[in-house]
Amino acid sequence: MQRIKFNEYQKEVMDVIGEGALLTVKYGDKLNTMTIGWGSIGVIWGKPMFTVLVRHSRYTHKLIENTDQFTVSVPLHGQLKEETDYCGTKSGRDVNKFEELGLELIEGQELNTPFIKNSDIHYECKIVYKQDMNPDLLFDEDIRSKYYPQGDYHTVYYGNIIGAYKE
Amino acid sequence: MQRIKFNEYQKEVMDVIGEGALLTVKYGDKLNTMTIGWGSIGVIWGKPMFTVLVRHSRYTHKLIENTDQFTVSVPLHGQLKEETDYCGTKSGRDVNKFEELGLELIEGQELNTPFIKNSDIHYECKIVYKQDMNPDLLFDEDIRSKYYPQGDYHTVYYGNIIGAYKE
Repeated sequence: MQRIKFNEYQKEVMDVIGEGALLTVKYGDKLNTMTIGWGSIGVIWGKPMFTVLVRHSRYTHKLIENTDQFTVSVPLHGQLKEETDYCGTKSGRDVNKFEELGLELIEGQELNTPFIKNSDIHYECKIVYKQDMNPDLLFDEDIRSKYYPQGDYHTVYYGNIIGAYKE
Repeated sequence: MQRIKFNEYQKEVMDVIGEGALLTVKYGDKLNTMTIGWGSIGVIWGKPMFTVLVRHSRYTHKLIENTDQFTVSVPLHGQLKEETDYCGTKSGRDVNKFEELGLELIEGQELNTPFIKNSDIHYECKIVYKQDMNPDLLFDEDIRSKYYPQGDYHTVYYGNIIGAYKE
C-alpha cells in the first residue's frame, strides 16, 4: 500500500465509478461491503472529502449510521467484476459476502475499517457530516422517477479522506 | 473553448481549488462571481456532478436561489490571483466586480450563464438538487468553530455538469 494524494487517481476513479466501487463499513463485529456506482471527490471545509450516498433500505445504512467511518475500494481495470456485480444485488443481511466471494481484506491504515484487496485505489474516510435527502428539493423529475419510484431516498455521507492509497 | 470530459482535468482542478475558483451566477440582468476554495466533482444519479457550497449571507446565495444554473471557472496557473482575492473579499451587493476588475466573460455554451475568461477550465452546471446544511449533523467541532462561529451555514448545490471546457 503506497500512500497517494487524495486526488492523484481521481480522474481514473471517476472514469470507472459507474462500473462499481466497493463501500465498506464496519460496526462492531459486523462488516459489510456494497457496490456503489456513484461518488464525488473534492475539497470541502478545507479538507479532502469523499461523498457517498446510501439508501435507507440498505444493510450498509444500518451499519454506517452506527459508525463514524467508511472505506472505498476502486478496481480500475475491470477486475472484481463478478464481485461488484454480486455485491450490487445481494444484501449483507442475507449473505456473508466475504465468505461467499472469498473477498480478501487489507487492514485499515489510519482507521479500523478494512479495504477490499485486489482493487487498485483505496480511500479511508472519517464521516464529518451527513444528511438525509429532502425529496422536496430534488428538482429533476427524471432523477426522481428513475431512482426513487418507491421513495427510497439516500443519505449523503461526507467522509474526510484521512488516507488514500494505491495497492 | 474545447469541450472536455467532465473529469479530464479533475486532478488539476483539485490541486488548485484551495487557491480559488470563480463561481458565477446570473439572475435576470444581475450577474455576480464569487471566489470558492471548495468544491467536489463526481458522478451522482448517474450524471457528472459539481457540488458547491454557498453561505446564506452571500449575495451569490440570493442570485443562485432564483436560478437553476451556475458556472465554475478555474485558473490552473495562478493567473487571476488578484481577481480571485478581490472576489473573495468584496460583495456583489456593493461593487460591480466585472467593472472594477475588468473581468472578461465568455458566453455560456449550453446554458446562459457566462464563464470568466482567462481561466483554464470551465464547467457549466444545471442545479438538480440543493439542501441547506443542518448544523445538528455536523460532527466535526473543529469545522464548526473554524467555519461557522456565527452560524452562517452553507447551502449545498448539486450541479449536473452539462458542459466542461478547456479555454
